[in-house]
Amino acid sequence: MKKIVSQDNKIFKMCLQLENRKHRDKLGKYIIEGPNLIEEALKNNVVPDFLIIDESSLQSLEIIELCKKYTIEIGKPDQDRILVFEEKLFHKLAQTENSQGILGIVDKFTFTVGEFFGYPKEGSGNILVLDRLQDPGNVGTIIRTADAAGYNGIMVLKGTVDIFSPKVVRACTGSLFRMPILFIDTPNHALEILKRYDKRVISTGFETQKYYYQVDLKKNIGLVIGNEGNGICQEFKEQSDEIIKIPMTGLIESLNASVAAAILMYEAMRH
Amino acid sequence: MKKIVSQDNKIFKMCLQLENRKHRDKLGKYIIEGPNLIEEALKNNVVPDFLIIDESSLQSLEIIELCKKYTIEIGKPDQDRILVFEEKLFHKLAQTENSQGILGIVDKFTFTVGEFFGYPKEGSGNILVLDRLQDPGNVGTIIRTADAAGYNGIMVLKGTVDIFSPKVVRACTGSLFRMPILFIDTPNHALEILKRYDKRVISTGFETQKYYYQVDLKKNIGLVIGNEGNGICQEFKEQSDEIIKIPMTGLIESLNASVAAAILMYEAMRH
Repeated sequence: MKKIVSQDNKIFKMCLQLENRKHRDKLGKYIIEGPNLIEEALKNNVVPDFLIIDESSLQSLEIIELCKKYTIEIGKPDQDRILVFEEKLFHKLAQTENSQGILGIVDKFTFTVGEFFGYPKEGSGNILVLDRLQDPGNVGTIIRTADAAGYNGIMVLKGTVDIFSPKVVRACTGSLFRMPILFIDTPNHALEILKRYDKRVISTGFETQKYYYQVDLKKNIGLVIGNEGNGICQEFKEQSDEIIKIPMTGLIESLNASVAAAILMYEAMRH
Repeated sequence: MKKIVSQDNKIFKMCLQLENRKHRDKLGKYIIEGPNLIEEALKNNVVPDFLIIDESSLQSLEIIELCKKYTIEIGKPDQDRILVFEEKLFHKLAQTENSQGILGIVDKFTFTVGEFFGYPKEGSGNILVLDRLQDPGNVGTIIRTADAAGYNGIMVLKGTVDIFSPKVVRACTGSLFRMPILFIDTPNHALEILKRYDKRVISTGFETQKYYYQVDLKKNIGLVIGNEGNGICQEFKEQSDEIIKIPMTGLIESLNASVAAAILMYEAMRH
């Protein structure tokens, strides 16, 4: 292990940069924080380029154990890939509140359309479409729920919060390492692809008489979840196979987006 | 309207204090932020003691409109209850990021057991029990979902995050003003009351063979949602009428607490 004490160290500087979307996009990397997420990453064959340990956590059994697993995973004791940061330096990284003494730098992944639909994942054939959601906690929770509900992948429309931002990654609790993700620029392109792969497109809206449990959501659907404030965009309103709604009692106007998504995704799990 | 420029103003000092649970408990008050929440409060007959306006937002039509409604609500133009804070002063209040130029100071409310169960709210007779949940966003989202799903009230066990904290209040998006809340010190007391009012107690757990859709959750249940890390406490494990689980595919270990609560509460809404 290599001990780092200087703010000029290039890995330290990279960690600082990766707090910013622009740099995550440019470098093609992102940061995962805490022993749980690093354990989940290794379990899912996502091997960090580097592990960064807070010097004051070096005695933690959990962290020693993780370093061993990592060393086995990278095939040989490659000391240059486990870095020990002096405590002060480690705590200069903004996300350390959740890092519990360990960070990993991980490569972002991208799928082509063919890889996305051909990915060997047991599931319902259902695809979730994120139509410009903004709240990172919502997006992470939705990806986690999609994983639990047997969805096969997530389409992320341009304008959605960066799914590699620390808050999204944290709220995903490991599901990000298992879910195929496809980035799409326009709603029309998303619609074209979903139709090409025989997915029925289902969106939520208010101007509909149909409740979600009156529609078959079990398999081969593309379920569109709209922006927290504005809902789904015009293209999905016009070109979906079905528009459905969730019943609500009394005076309430809407549900939280991650809650609405969960209710719809779990409808398919009732067997 | 009264313009406030000094940090020694007693309402300004009270606002600062109310950021802290100890003072919220002592003063029996809490803060609501932003035009939407204040509008929701007035709609639900929750009338703030004071409205506090950021001087730089005085021209906002939305805020002028709200002040008019407030004045009608309190019955006469009581200028001392609408305070205009100098911009610098207003921005010293920690929550202003979400306040959009207006805050209200509101009385906390408490229900007795009799009032809680006798509250005239149309609903399923279902009660939600929060067993020491810690995440304010989860708790607020759960209260919002309970409102939408026609639940009749929320029991809050000691050890749960303060439901009058700014993050919970915000995530409730107005449902806090509509839902009866009952604070309970011990799980045994909660169980005793639920049984006295003929509620079947339903908890979630992992060591059960029963899925949630195999149990009738439609009416007169007490649904217990457990702590994010540790689940439900021993007393509920031992004394619930049913323990149920939510199916999950693949490698995932758990769902977000607000998602799990939503799936269970909405099971009763499928008609």
